[in-house]
Amino acid sequence: MLDLSVVVKFGVQFGLFGGSIQQLGTEKHHAEYLPQVGSLELPGCFAMSELGHGSNVRELETTATYDADSGQFVIETPREAARKEWIGNAARHGRMATVFARLRVPDKNGVLQEHGVHAFLVPLRDDDGDVLGGVRIEDNGRKMGLNGVDNGRVWFDDVRIPRENLLDRFAQVSDEGEYTSPIPSSGKRFFTMLSTLVGGRISVAAAGLSAAKSALTIAVRYGARRRQFGPKDAPERPILDYRTHQRRLFPLLAEAYALDFAVSDVAARFAGRQAADDDLRQVEGEAAALKALSTWNATTTVQTARECCGGQGYLSANRLPQLKADTDVFTTFEGDNTVLMLQVAKGLLSEFQQELQDMNFFGLARFIAEAAARRVTERNPLHGRDTSSEHLRDAGFQQDAFAFRERALLQSVARRMKQRLDDGMDSFEAFIECQDHLLSLAKAHAERLTLEAFADGVEACDDEELRPVLAKLRNLYALARMEEGVGWFQEKHYVESGQAHAIRREVNALCAELRPLAVDLVDAFAIPDEALAAPIAT
Amino acid sequence: MLDLSVVVKFGVQFGLFGGSIQQLGTEKHHAEYLPQVGSLELPGCFAMSELGHGSNVRELETTATYDADSGQFVIETPREAARKEWIGNAARHGRMATVFARLRVPDKNGVLQEHGVHAFLVPLRDDDGDVLGGVRIEDNGRKMGLNGVDNGRVWFDDVRIPRENLLDRFAQVSDEGEYTSPIPSSGKRFFTMLSTLVGGRISVAAAGLSAAKSALTIAVRYGARRRQFGPKDAPERPILDYRTHQRRLFPLLAEAYALDFAVSDVAARFAGRQAADDDLRQVEGEAAALKALSTWNATTTVQTARECCGGQGYLSANRLPQLKADTDVFTTFEGDNTVLMLQVAKGLLSEFQQELQDMNFFGLARFIAEAAARRVTERNPLHGRDTSSEHLRDAGFQQDAFAFRERALLQSVARRMKQRLDDGMDSFEAFIECQDHLLSLAKAHAERLTLEAFADGVEACDDEELRPVLAKLRNLYALARMEEGVGWFQEKHYVESGQAHAIRREVNALCAELRPLAVDLVDAFAIPDEALAAPIAT
Repeated sequence: MLDLSVVVKFGVQFGLFGGSIQQLGTEKHHAEYLPQVGSLELPGCFAMSELGHGSNVRELETTATYDADSGQFVIETPREAARKEWIGNAARHGRMATVFARLRVPDKNGVLQEHGVHAFLVPLRDDDGDVLGGVRIEDNGRKMGLNGVDNGRVWFDDVRIPRENLLDRFAQVSDEGEYTSPIPSSGKRFFTMLSTLVGGRISVAAAGLSAAKSALTIAVRYGARRRQFGPKDAPERPILDYRTHQRRLFPLLAEAYALDFAVSDVAARFAGRQAADDDLRQVEGEAAALKALSTWNATTTVQTARECCGGQGYLSANRLPQLKADTDVFTTFEGDNTVLMLQVAKGLLSEFQQELQDMNFFGLARFIAEAAARRVTERNPLHGRDTSSEHLRDAGFQQDAFAFRERALLQSVARRMKQRLDDGMDSFEAFIECQDHLLSLAKAHAERLTLEAFADGVEACDDEELRPVLAKLRNLYALARMEEGVGWFQEKHYVESGQAHAIRREVNALCAELRPLAVDLVDAFAIPDEALAAPIAT
Repeated sequence: MLDLSVVVKFGVQFGLFGGSIQQLGTEKHHAEYLPQVGSLELPGCFAMSELGHGSNVRELETTATYDADSGQFVIETPREAARKEWIGNAARHGRMATVFARLRVPDKNGVLQEHGVHAFLVPLRDDDGDVLGGVRIEDNGRKMGLNGVDNGRVWFDDVRIPRENLLDRFAQVSDEGEYTSPIPSSGKRFFTMLSTLVGGRISVAAAGLSAAKSALTIAVRYGARRRQFGPKDAPERPILDYRTHQRRLFPLLAEAYALDFAVSDVAARFAGRQAADDDLRQVEGEAAALKALSTWNATTTVQTARECCGGQGYLSANRLPQLKADTDVFTTFEGDNTVLMLQVAKGLLSEFQQELQDMNFFGLARFIAEAAARRVTERNPLHGRDTSSEHLRDAGFQQDAFAFRERALLQSVARRMKQRLDDGMDSFEAFIECQDHLLSLAKAHAERLTLEAFADGVEACDDEELRPVLAKLRNLYALARMEEGVGWFQEKHYVESGQAHAIRREVNALCAELRPLAVDLVDAFAIPDEALAAPIAT
């Protein structure tokens, strides 16, 4: 709720740097480093991204070559595009970095064997803060926002670190230079290491949500006070009375509530995960989907709030410019949203293929029968034609619609991919041709998760006065999302023309019903005035 | 294409300050001030907005009271909310301001008569730049962007100006204090004075378009160079090859081309207007509609370009942060976009009512018959079901669709308004209830104008090689807009389910066809590298 640069520096130190030691290292690393990381005696960095490889980190080019004679790894930046880029804490404070580099170990004949990307602890600065020999660091320079974070570029030239500095939970190199790993597949090994990013993604989703709440608090309070225009010979009306204004802000208010349930849910499951690897894999997918959804939502919300406050929103004094500048990068860092969403969709697609493969003949027959039955009920004309408020405000109807959309997009993109592969198209080209479809699938998935978390939250609420208010917000969230995607729902004959019209009417009605509650609903975010720091709203 | 603060200071000095003298003043003002305005000897301001009244300028509270004894007007800020706010050039450079204030003239009995808002030339600073007595000025403080513009707040306390300083083209006050005006209706008089804003709105539309072009040039060039991911064992692919990336950028590239035709068209008509007042009224409406469309588009385009450039787009060195910060206010200054669009819709509604009223019995009968015939052809099932590329890429089909949407929204909102008024609802409440509908109408109107200007431009192009390329861009503009609004088109049975699907397919196909042309299409904007000032794109 306060300064987002502090949030990011905190995340780099404790989440990424400390987290990588905890998750990728072993007992000796934990004992030696974690206390100093926790006490800030050892400020550190997470040096993964390179100039040439921000998203496709599997192709990172920095090398770590084992030298058996000295028992050291030699870290090297082989070319300019391989410089570490955007490394938080590097430009000023970092003393050590977790560096991701391609591990190369010479075999008995001295021929270098490639083992793919691994993580190494590399000292960057001495105790006085002076940069160590062989390391070159440059400040990334001024950014749109988050200028409280000292992002830097790092080059390594013949930097030698002891063998023990390999974070060796998932792969070890013996003194003699023997490489071993409990995970035989190098792909799986790499993705296991990448799971260090999950916590960061959940944090970014939460930070985006906090920013959205701040922006909504400012815009809703201002809208309730600011008067402009009105009926003839009567006082001017608060601009929040206008339907256009309500339609800009209230669906986003509902979405903030929805995301609060969804992000809290995945955070709790991440924090409480222990046993099942399966669940971690699922949490990983959900974290990626919600990171994208929440940060896109933050960008939209802060922008809308700024515009809803007119000139006042453009003044730095009213905080929105800083919120906008600081959160803008959320959509592209810690995993670019589009790239993340395509990975989420690919994950859903492989689960689906697995599901089909796992079925025996009877299972497949049942699946087909169920799909047909679902098509009948889900596309039941009465279902898609019922224009009553009661029907549209039914959580079951809403969840069915979101689940139908996800399932239908999954099935159809699977069919499209298969057709192309059957026709002999290269799988990468087929993937490119289906990208827009895959992106729609991932969004539908993320929104279905969010609606479910919200609906569960409403149901679990045992405050009789609060529950109907939350239900209104859930209704608005669900129907505003359906309104936006109503073209698709009609195309699939899930929603008929009259119902499309009724959804629009219902969004309007819900906005009007939420108007008297709006200020309370942002007050409930409980952001202290000192943290909000916007004179127009305090 | 260069610094937008300079654009705004230029616009304030020559467009608003100079323009108000030229358009609202008479010969004596022109002779005395225009040469000094043009030479920058007399830097000036346009002091319309007040803290309490940014959009509803008819309710401005600053007063200008005539004192017949001295032959002076007394300018006064009656309360804090009436301070002039956001006045460009005020904080530092302005020596004089066109001040909008309520004119009050005492009648023979000394009772003040209100004549509504008028414009007065009020000196602010002396030749040394020192603020004059009775005037108080404060800097607005730091803003998100445009910090090269010295926006200020201005208070007036018993500031006396000679009678001649009333800009008196549309209203005069004689020495003895007799008020006269060639325009009897005070409402019409006020709106005539407001037409000084038209030039500014066209300029802002053009400035937004320039910013969008710069952003597109940066993002398209970077996307063509930046490689990430690729097929197994093959070089990585330029990110512009990805369908998701094309779908983010190419519809906006097409929209920039579309707006170029539309904005140039309205600018030419504004510059060439002379005679017919009617045409000015129409240019005024189109300027408002295009100002909103072009600046919303600028915000979306700059944001999308930033995200498409990932971390590189977040670096100040690559210009996008400044473009974003500077253009952000375009959507809410020089008329808030939402307010402007509602005014545009109201204008269309009154024209429509006039149209109906002007019809005699036979005219009305013909109108009804034509509407019915149109409904038959426009909603002809074959028309809405034809999924061929040829049909979808037909300019006639596209223009029919856009015109149908505008007309249908106009007729339905007119019906909704009438129902409410017939039911005895207050007209202001009825207006609020129909605002979302009116906003859709105004957007449909603006997009129809834009598509028409684009289609005319394509047709007028006599370069045989260029015309098909422009036609592709027009197709993409039209179909991407239809895709976005496909829910509405289906609801009205104008587009059938299969055609909705075909439109999506066609947008994908057009994106792929434009891929090899994309770099040329941004190069054609011809922005010099020095002006683009983005190392990732030069």
